[in-house]
Amino acid sequence: MIIEFRPDFRSSQLTTMSTHPLTNSHEVPARSSSDGSAVALRVRGLATSECVGRGTVLDLAGLQAETKTTRVWAVVFDVLRATTVIVRAIESGALGVRPCLTIDQARAVATAQPSSSRVLGGERGGKAIDGFDLGNSPAEYTPERCRGRLVVLTTTNGTRALEAAAGAERVFVAAFVNLAATARHLVACLERELQAAPIRDSWAPPLLLLVPAGTDGRVSQEDVLAAGGLIAALQDQVQAAEPARPPRLRFTCDDDETLLAHLAWRAVAAERQTAATATDRDAILAERLKWGRGGRNLLDLGFGRDLEDCARVDSLPRVVARDPNSGLLVAEESDSPPSVA
Amino acid sequence: MIIEFRPDFRSSQLTTMSTHPLTNSHEVPARSSSDGSAVALRVRGLATSECVGRGTVLDLAGLQAETKTTRVWAVVFDVLRATTVIVRAIESGALGVRPCLTIDQARAVATAQPSSSRVLGGERGGKAIDGFDLGNSPAEYTPERCRGRLVVLTTTNGTRALEAAAGAERVFVAAFVNLAATARHLVACLERELQAAPIRDSWAPPLLLLVPAGTDGRVSQEDVLAAGGLIAALQDQVQAAEPARPPRLRFTCDDDETLLAHLAWRAVAAERQTAATATDRDAILAERLKWGRGGRNLLDLGFGRDLEDCARVDSLPRVVARDPNSGLLVAEESDSPPSVA
Repeated sequence: MIIEFRPDFRSSQLTTMSTHPLTNSHEVPARSSSDGSAVALRVRGLATSECVGRGTVLDLAGLQAETKTTRVWAVVFDVLRATTVIVRAIESGALGVRPCLTIDQARAVATAQPSSSRVLGGERGGKAIDGFDLGNSPAEYTPERCRGRLVVLTTTNGTRALEAAAGAERVFVAAFVNLAATARHLVACLERELQAAPIRDSWAPPLLLLVPAGTDGRVSQEDVLAAGGLIAALQDQVQAAEPARPPRLRFTCDDDETLLAHLAWRAVAAERQTAATATDRDAILAERLKWGRGGRNLLDLGFGRDLEDCARVDSLPRVVARDPNSGLLVAEESDSPPSVA
Repeated sequence: MIIEFRPDFRSSQLTTMSTHPLTNSHEVPARSSSDGSAVALRVRGLATSECVGRGTVLDLAGLQAETKTTRVWAVVFDVLRATTVIVRAIESGALGVRPCLTIDQARAVATAQPSSSRVLGGERGGKAIDGFDLGNSPAEYTPERCRGRLVVLTTTNGTRALEAAAGAERVFVAAFVNLAATARHLVACLERELQAAPIRDSWAPPLLLLVPAGTDGRVSQEDVLAAGGLIAALQDQVQAAEPARPPRLRFTCDDDETLLAHLAWRAVAAERQTAATATDRDAILAERLKWGRGGRNLLDLGFGRDLEDCARVDSLPRVVARDPNSGLLVAEESDSPPSVA
């Protein structure tokens, strides 16, 4: 059975329809189903220019008022290359990653640490920065360089997106390399909350906000595709997590950006399914990424290898989240999500 | 053979690759191929908020400077429902459609005409306007109401998008109902220009700008899908128009918005291919449109029939363009495109 997610229809014309007439897939129950058998998480995507473009910041307060929820969980994507690098650094054993907007800020943060306990990395215009330990290629962030150290990273679009989302209750860092791990963790956290809620009907699920960092305020193909890939992974996880008894967790797409991101990913996923091996599937995605502006820029700079590394779907099964106390981006184990302040 | 369009790669790493390694499709020759065998039209999409959102206007001069072309052909999409209504009115024999931003402006334009020679239509908040002849449903614009008359139409998002694009060399009006007709006409115009150019290498093809009107400055699923559908239709037409000898017309996607629009449409097209009849295919698209904000609004207002009418792909094979002299939206025959001022 294929469960497709549906928006939270207000129209009575559709809420009574339980089976998709043409694909035989079943409609996700609406958010406040009267028998309490399902609770829906709403997923929303933001057009890049609305959240982090051109120096503006994400209007979280406005979003909370509009959606009538104070709980926002943000997932930030800067696939080429900041969020892929961050996930790789954490996978390689870094204690945490501190994203910095400016080179001076990064140097200052790094200087405050003993040199043996930190790594200074980043890029400007895609290129490595003079005097920094590392550039912005995932392959550079090896266990040898990262284990037990703080990584201080300065990039432009990804850092700006992370800062814009900092006011959210939770902030996650995602890329193609950790889609399934992130989706599994999100669903596990929500299931745990749902099961622990004293009165289930009163449990207020967070709004999941997908934030594609984009490039200089314009939409980036790769970030939108990764957001769409997370939606597909959430679908898989929700079905896998199906409990024996209600309530079940469902989710709905809250806006057109999210619907489009999921559709775009589905086209790429269909292409990927024509390949026999995971390596070939990732090569198809890498090829697709070359068509976008970010991919072309990387090729021009000679970073074709990075494109391939960033396209290895689920190769780094690691959940990375912002620690609410320190603001550091750290590994998060499924068993112990930090308590929210 | 499936020809996929490719961006105008600047990287020498890719321009030598003539066959897609995994799908056996062939790369479109780059724009300035040395043997002059192909000339590429560049297609660009604009995120809604950049062109018509929140009262800003499309920065055509900036676009021309950035893309180094003075020739921009814009295609405007407001599928639900303005551009579908406009195409329907022209198909029903209207002499032309005059889009107006305000109700007062529409009344003034209408009053200047004998009542027997005009029809006054439009919507506010999706609903019909007091004292107007027609609302904003395609089915209302019948031959009985439209033939031989001027249609004065006031809508919000679609009119704003058309005004924003008015400075382009050509402005076309498109919706799902006339995708193939529009693509066929565009390719025919370009082929004619190309064949007539005294020195073919010096022919400067226009930049094709896809303008999804969106809703209040936010992306609309249906407008982006229709833009993606036009790209797919252009692919079909370019292949169908393949001349016996070079130069051949090719096109490239110039930005990530365009790539994403095409991917999103491909996912819907794959869904549509599972249906046996055109009616079932259109029902799949109509169902998909119900998931977006615009579709939900129409359902809430009781306009489910309009959704179905707007989802009838290629049901109205009519090309509609802005007359460069009068500014009216009029029928354009493939045989006689107007000369550009």
